[in-house]
Amino acid sequence: MNRINKNERIGSIIKILTENPKKIYTLNQFVNIFECAKSTLSEDIDTIKNIFEKFSLGEIETIAGAAGGVLYKPTMTKEQIREFALELCDEINKTDRIIPGGYIYLNDLLYSPDIVYNMGRALANFFYDYSFDYVVTIETKGIPIALMTARILNKPLVVVRKEGKLTDGTAIHMNYLTSSKRIQTMSLAKRALKKNSKVIFVDDFMKAGGTAKGIVDLMKEFECEVVGVGVLMATKEPKEKLVQDYVNLLVLEKVDEDKKEIIVQSYL
Amino acid sequence: MNRINKNERIGSIIKILTENPKKIYTLNQFVNIFECAKSTLSEDIDTIKNIFEKFSLGEIETIAGAAGGVLYKPTMTKEQIREFALELCDEINKTDRIIPGGYIYLNDLLYSPDIVYNMGRALANFFYDYSFDYVVTIETKGIPIALMTARILNKPLVVVRKEGKLTDGTAIHMNYLTSSKRIQTMSLAKRALKKNSKVIFVDDFMKAGGTAKGIVDLMKEFECEVVGVGVLMATKEPKEKLVQDYVNLLVLEKVDEDKKEIIVQSYL
Repeated sequence: MNRINKNERIGSIIKILTENPKKIYTLNQFVNIFECAKSTLSEDIDTIKNIFEKFSLGEIETIAGAAGGVLYKPTMTKEQIREFALELCDEINKTDRIIPGGYIYLNDLLYSPDIVYNMGRALANFFYDYSFDYVVTIETKGIPIALMTARILNKPLVVVRKEGKLTDGTAIHMNYLTSSKRIQTMSLAKRALKKNSKVIFVDDFMKAGGTAKGIVDLMKEFECEVVGVGVLMATKEPKEKLVQDYVNLLVLEKVDEDKKEIIVQSYL
Repeated sequence: MNRINKNERIGSIIKILTENPKKIYTLNQFVNIFECAKSTLSEDIDTIKNIFEKFSLGEIETIAGAAGGVLYKPTMTKEQIREFALELCDEINKTDRIIPGGYIYLNDLLYSPDIVYNMGRALANFFYDYSFDYVVTIETKGIPIALMTARILNKPLVVVRKEGKLTDGTAIHMNYLTSSKRIQTMSLAKRALKKNSKVIFVDDFMKAGGTAKGIVDLMKEFECEVVGVGVLMATKEPKEKLVQDYVNLLVLEKVDEDKKEIIVQSYL
């Protein structure tokens, strides 16, 4: 390979860090790629840090010590989250999203790769300082948001099923009560979680919190603990949810099927 | 903002392009951010192109004309795909993945954000030149791969359900026959697809192709057409699948429950 200049080193490093959020790269890994001195790379990393700061592109974090290195955290500022949440509100507060029964059609948003990446990015923001091992969700509509949250926090995703599946092998089944008082089943492969793990639960929607409470109980069966809950949207009522601590990006105040009115607001 | 130098422009542009695969940015968008001449930016883009080429980081494509601009395609070389597929094979060919009934436990891989990003990246490679409107999948295990494929190809994802849901509103239900001759249902909200659209179907697994065939038929009900099928893994037998054209990364040759043996190979 020809001689490598600063632009090339900086460009390549930014490409690699951006594509692999929260993954630690050691300086030695880059030294091997670019065949340059460690001190040169340290300067490059400083330059990169400044670029991310100057243009509000997220954070470049350096970790000192033997296990040290550099990583990209796709943090958002409070203003960026609020701006994104307000865009979502504009999109959601449209009458043609109302479905018979007072439900809101959101599949187009919940399955849009761009939008769920930013939902995951915004939710991840609340959990950067948590120590945990997995992101857990329950099928189906929350999977994309949870996957993106997991990607941004660089943790494995675990998907709880609503029925047992042959491809799960031995599984733990648990019945729970939804907010509409229906009995539902959760099922999770025994090998999906290591004992004594900590998990963050991510979902698209929370009403009374029955599902989140179910997940808390299911995790106990695995000797695991839910240390955080993040949802895209939580209803304003009931105010008291079955789980105490949760974060949400949006608040659903009202769906009026007769007046064809949806009121969703940004939480921040 | 202080004066912006070449490093900063190149670094920021690479960050933005990498985080938004296949999204077209016009030079004017960057001119506005960096307050510099268009000719300067053209030179920057050339530099970036060369960096991506020199370090095999994927492709930077420039599109001429009024609707023109620059975009990042996370292409992989054939060798990169093969290397990734072989890593997957090593991971899959482990006896403790065999589940009673001759199934293989793959959830840890199918839900690992890193791994599904690369699965999506590898599958996307086959479809860069296709003209299509949506990536379609069916719940549940294929959703992460399909989401990442959709993200990399910058198209919306559509998730077919196995049962109708209240939050879908009006939906089209269809029964189909799986390869094990069981009757299954597919359901999709009527508003999920625009008429006359072309779609790529992405899933984790294909045996005889009953599900893929079901999707082809369901798409006809929506006056849409499946123009491509991509799966992570297809079985070697039966050789004749119910859909003709499909691409797969891995070939499952054999699962022997008694001998505790799995044989999976790279397709390329």
